[in-house]
Amino acid sequence: MRSLALGVVGGAGRPGPGRVVARSPEGVVDIGSLADVEGGPHADLLAAPTLDALLAAGRPAWREVHGWLAPRLRTDHAPYVLPPAGLELRLPFTVADYVDFFACEQHAVNASEIFRPGAPPLAPNWKHLPVGYHGRAGTVRVSGTPVVRPWGQVAAGELAPTRRLDLEVELGFVLGPSDGPVTIDDALDHVFGVVLLNDWSARDVQAFESRPLGPLLGKSFATSISGWVTPLDELAAAWTDPPPRDPVPLPHLLGPGDRGLDIALELTINGETVSRPPAVDLYWTVAQLVTHLTTNGAPLRAGDLLGSGTVSGARRDQRGCLLELGWGGTEPVALGGGATRTWLEDGDEVVINATAPAVGGGRLELGEVRGRVLPARDA
Amino acid sequence: MRSLALGVVGGAGRPGPGRVVARSPEGVVDIGSLADVEGGPHADLLAAPTLDALLAAGRPAWREVHGWLAPRLRTDHAPYVLPPAGLELRLPFTVADYVDFFACEQHAVNASEIFRPGAPPLAPNWKHLPVGYHGRAGTVRVSGTPVVRPWGQVAAGELAPTRRLDLEVELGFVLGPSDGPVTIDDALDHVFGVVLLNDWSARDVQAFESRPLGPLLGKSFATSISGWVTPLDELAAAWTDPPPRDPVPLPHLLGPGDRGLDIALELTINGETVSRPPAVDLYWTVAQLVTHLTTNGAPLRAGDLLGSGTVSGARRDQRGCLLELGWGGTEPVALGGGATRTWLEDGDEVVINATAPAVGGGRLELGEVRGRVLPARDA
Repeated sequence: MRSLALGVVGGAGRPGPGRVVARSPEGVVDIGSLADVEGGPHADLLAAPTLDALLAAGRPAWREVHGWLAPRLRTDHAPYVLPPAGLELRLPFTVADYVDFFACEQHAVNASEIFRPGAPPLAPNWKHLPVGYHGRAGTVRVSGTPVVRPWGQVAAGELAPTRRLDLEVELGFVLGPSDGPVTIDDALDHVFGVVLLNDWSARDVQAFESRPLGPLLGKSFATSISGWVTPLDELAAAWTDPPPRDPVPLPHLLGPGDRGLDIALELTINGETVSRPPAVDLYWTVAQLVTHLTTNGAPLRAGDLLGSGTVSGARRDQRGCLLELGWGGTEPVALGGGATRTWLEDGDEVVINATAPAVGGGRLELGEVRGRVLPARDA
Repeated sequence: MRSLALGVVGGAGRPGPGRVVARSPEGVVDIGSLADVEGGPHADLLAAPTLDALLAAGRPAWREVHGWLAPRLRTDHAPYVLPPAGLELRLPFTVADYVDFFACEQHAVNASEIFRPGAPPLAPNWKHLPVGYHGRAGTVRVSGTPVVRPWGQVAAGELAPTRRLDLEVELGFVLGPSDGPVTIDDALDHVFGVVLLNDWSARDVQAFESRPLGPLLGKSFATSISGWVTPLDELAAAWTDPPPRDPVPLPHLLGPGDRGLDIALELTINGETVSRPPAVDLYWTVAQLVTHLTTNGAPLRAGDLLGSGTVSGARRDQRGCLLELGWGGTEPVALGGGATRTWLEDGDEVVINATAPAVGGGRLELGEVRGRVLPARDA
């Protein structure tokens, strides 16, 4: 079944403000009107053009809204289902700061072996803190937005469209605000929900530019997220033990909130399932990411977006990017019908789906993130 | 003389919206009212709580506003000067994305020798493109905001307040929007103006966390900018030839806009002048930074902020951070009265000032950026 997720829709071709909606088995529900007419909690936050006001309101409001909406959408709500014709999902919130982490050990090890053969598989910091970097908030796009193959310096003295266009299968976490540091006990109170995230990457550009300050243009052309945000309150059955850690992280990164999420991801390219990355393998949990990010006193803002980094399992068919699936371009990936890929080609369509255990059994489907590659601009 | 700079003020202790102002020899001028009463151009953009609307309007509006305001403020405008009591400068615009570059060769060489002794002084990419990274937009603060010494993982397994708190003397560039890539011929049309910028840094945190994705918490606790933004239109006499480059950059990074800015910076700590970094030495110019950043198709947003990276000249008394001035903590810097510093201490006040050649002779003073270090929070 589909998760009760929130999003924002606009009418096709109409540039005006969007409206906050939820998805139910019956369709796309105008929950602003529903809450207004029926006296639901925080109707003012829901009768809004984006999720921004709801995100700013914090955990108590989020819980009240979900607690009211979940049972309400199991009963008749046909009058509030929007006519589907022309509806389009928009970016559901204003992205404040976007931080992309590197929280999956298998991905870190694989990337190191490919990019830095012979080097130690993990930097000395990796098991002590969640390594990450700020990405470009201004190029976070909603699912369905095409991605134009970027130009860049693919090597010294060569400006060209990237020849190593990749995707990255990630979880994204959508945050509310904090006044300052967030303890791990409180961390999940600052996480509104989960999106699926594709961190498009130009590997040749990234490899050339990244020393010593990390990726910039190899990532900043586009990051896609699902239009549906699944509230944490919907994922109550998905929490699991985190993987064993050695060495034990510092005490401020340990506590009851340090729990993994059993979310099963699926990557398809042109309709062929290419891999099934298991988010349960993430070494660092969302609570640890939030706490770490604020350790230095930096507050969170409503609309902050955290990426988990590429999710990769131990098996080849669990790897979350073409860099790993094709081992740096050396092992083509079969797409069926005789087609293979080492990197993305123009016209390729990439879709990430996911499921998680539902309360009461069965599995919840999260909203997909989808994007098609368009040819590079003319020179 | 002081540059005709724009900013935003609020009343002391009044949390309401600010208002756009300019500074003149007579004081702080309510230019929204001035333009409204006297029929100046774009009065609607000036009668606003921040510079956001003006930034979004683009170069033609910027030029018209400056072209009208500069002569007008040379004649009587006393009725529009705000009573100074209680006025406080606020963050003048909403920071969209913040990108900090590494555009000064001397700083890059010095930092490499200190952080990576024995390694080649510049990475292979450095002379081919402006290396940079996204910083945290949400912690950009206006001059005068105190900076609390941040906690962080200063080494493997050790969480502590930073013991290596540093400053970085930089220029900041405040941008308007673009639809996509910006050619170097058009780049300066997207730059509204200049701020002075202090990229506070926790060097121990930064050193431990930065491999392989660059700095995160070592920088994200605070970045300070001057409250006054000096429009590029005010700096017409400051343009100079850029330094010689070898190898010659790719053609898309060369053109008439590739000009240096002869801005003379001054760093003081507790009132003692510590160094005079020359911005004219920046290897990569602002037009190159803008063009590079959009090469991959990423558009600019109004309120994007670019940092030049630390400005350092060849002489010791021209270095723009304590990392270099104290050579990684090994050569204490004299502050006068017998005091020395290798890193910042609690209570230290850091001020960056700057001047640039004025049209018609003499020198313009840009607005300062000031900040005092407060002790770390309790554990």
